Amino acid sequence: MDTPYVIGIDMGGTNTALGVVDRRGDILFRSSINTDDYATGESYVDALSDAINEVINANNLAGQIKGIGMGVPNGNMHEGTIEKAANISWTKSGAVPLTSMLTKKTGLPCKLTNDANAAALGEMIYGVAKGMKDFIVITLGTGVGSGIVANGQLVIGHDGFAGELGHITAVRNNGRACGCGRTGCLETYASATGVARTAREFMELNPQTTSLLREIVHRPVTSKDVYDAAVKGDRLALDVFNYTSRILGEALCDFIAFSSPKAIILFGGLANSGKFLTEPLKKVIDEHVLYVYAGKTEILVSQLNDAEAAILGASALAWEI
Amino acid sequence: MDTPYVIGIDMGGTNTALGVVDRRGDILFRSSINTDDYATGESYVDALSDAINEVINANNLAGQIKGIGMGVPNGNMHEGTIEKAANISWTKSGAVPLTSMLTKKTGLPCKLTNDANAAALGEMIYGVAKGMKDFIVITLGTGVGSGIVANGQLVIGHDGFAGELGHITAVRNNGRACGCGRTGCLETYASATGVARTAREFMELNPQTTSLLREIVHRPVTSKDVYDAAVKGDRLALDVFNYTSRILGEALCDFIAFSSPKAIILFGGLANSGKFLTEPLKKVIDEHVLYVYAGKTEILVSQLNDAEAAILGASALAWEI
Repeated sequence: MDTPYVIGIDMGGTNTALGVVDRRGDILFRSSINTDDYATGESYVDALSDAINEVINANNLAGQIKGIGMGVPNGNMHEGTIEKAANISWTKSGAVPLTSMLTKKTGLPCKLTNDANAAALGEMIYGVAKGMKDFIVITLGTGVGSGIVANGQLVIGHDGFAGELGHITAVRNNGRACGCGRTGCLETYASATGVARTAREFMELNPQTTSLLREIVHRPVTSKDVYDAAVKGDRLALDVFNYTSRILGEALCDFIAFSSPKAIILFGGLANSGKFLTEPLKKVIDEHVLYVYAGKTEILVSQLNDAEAAILGASALAWEI
Repeated sequence: MDTPYVIGIDMGGTNTALGVVDRRGDILFRSSINTDDYATGESYVDALSDAINEVINANNLAGQIKGIGMGVPNGNMHEGTIEKAANISWTKSGAVPLTSMLTKKTGLPCKLTNDANAAALGEMIYGVAKGMKDFIVITLGTGVGSGIVANGQLVIGHDGFAGELGHITAVRNNGRACGCGRTGCLETYASATGVARTAREFMELNPQTTSLLREIVHRPVTSKDVYDAAVKGDRLALDVFNYTSRILGEALCDFIAFSSPKAIILFGGLANSGKFLTEPLKKVIDEHVLYVYAGKTEILVSQLNDAEAAILGASALAWEI
């Protein structure tokens, strides 16, 4: 029997969104549940499989679904488990075998990977990496994540946890404290949070410089504020992007020396900063990359619709089942 | 017809060594030619294929050779070419299509890769990485090279040049000048040359400290001198190893965050420094690695005989033809 559809599930800390996806990458039907309203993994999976079965039954899709792909924070692709994901309380006490539990409840084969790997698969099947066998997706959101594809396959490592490029040490001396307990991690600089932190630091350290950002006094400055100010030509905001691009660009040069990707694809909130990020970034890479790679690696911004990309990326896993 | 043998060729800047290798990794017959005694790629390939045919005929191996594998400085695995290799004059004027030329002359299929990738294949088939699907070989010689295996395959990148880990920027501010034209590259610190450079720097910067190395006055201090002094308990020499291990160890932590290898295998001259390098290195990694990888990646030293490893590694390519 033909199975023309897959289900993609994007598990976030707050919300779990699911969609039925066809081979062209169109999301035909959607549903969602809360992620953290449950005391145990069992009750979460119960609610999720109820939502899945409801979508299947409401749309007469029984027998037409090839499988389920999930993008899961801190997901272990080898084991099909989730463990100790920040903000999801039912994952704290130990590894929850999500894929096998979900298969048991739905009768459908299921695969999971972490969010950034799902994004990489989404780009390869539906996005700007179509046809590429070697590329890296860098997700620039609250943190910095990465999905690495080499020889047409995800690099997941011996334990399923490869691709934590947000935690390479970008600044070795006097680097910023990171949530991981170390200092100088790339994500303390190149995430949305890092950009806001840089803006606040620049304002503190240069009390004489004027900036539109100084008008924001009743709440903390965000990366969106920095972008809005940059659009208006604000010098300090532009300097924040230049500083961010220098640190990110030098790190990308190291990643290029690792896997020599055809493209590095920027994905997520901060990637939408457009030329304020990409132009200085390309300049830093041109200046700093090892000569054998000069001019070879494209810096691209994901063109997938943000709201859809995560579901599409996760669904891409299910075609491989 | 059964083809129980392959030919492995290790091309160095001075000497090109070849061996007939069986499936167990024994080198049965050997030969060699000079690498740089030729005006053109054609005349080099003529001499090399003469040497190959001689070994085959002298030992009645016609029809029993599956193919030829070559480890080549600056070799492009995708293209089968060598281009602009330091010290090999006939490579300066453009890419030389070594594999196709050699196949034409010998009638044998031929594959090449760079030296470090050949070392990685050698470790996977005959060495300490036997059975591993995810590991990194770091070659610590005059320079620092690397061969990366993920999902059981060499990571060679879109252009065939992945794995230049000697040129990740280990020291971002005030780093040492590197032969590549940039500063702070890992190989300026963690190679044999880098260790000697550190020793000379330590002596200059600390004129009051005594050291056995100060007795070497008629020639430059080498990494072997540093090792010999460390064996005798020389404080400055031990400090040189600690310093080297800190820089190399922090870089290895970044590589672990990239591909989460089961093992990192040290290979080449400096790797023979044994515990003076590996003990502080393991300590740095334990202290610095991201918590998800803690205690997971083994630091191993290649056990292959140095003189044989390069030929074995290159020969490993030929089994895959």
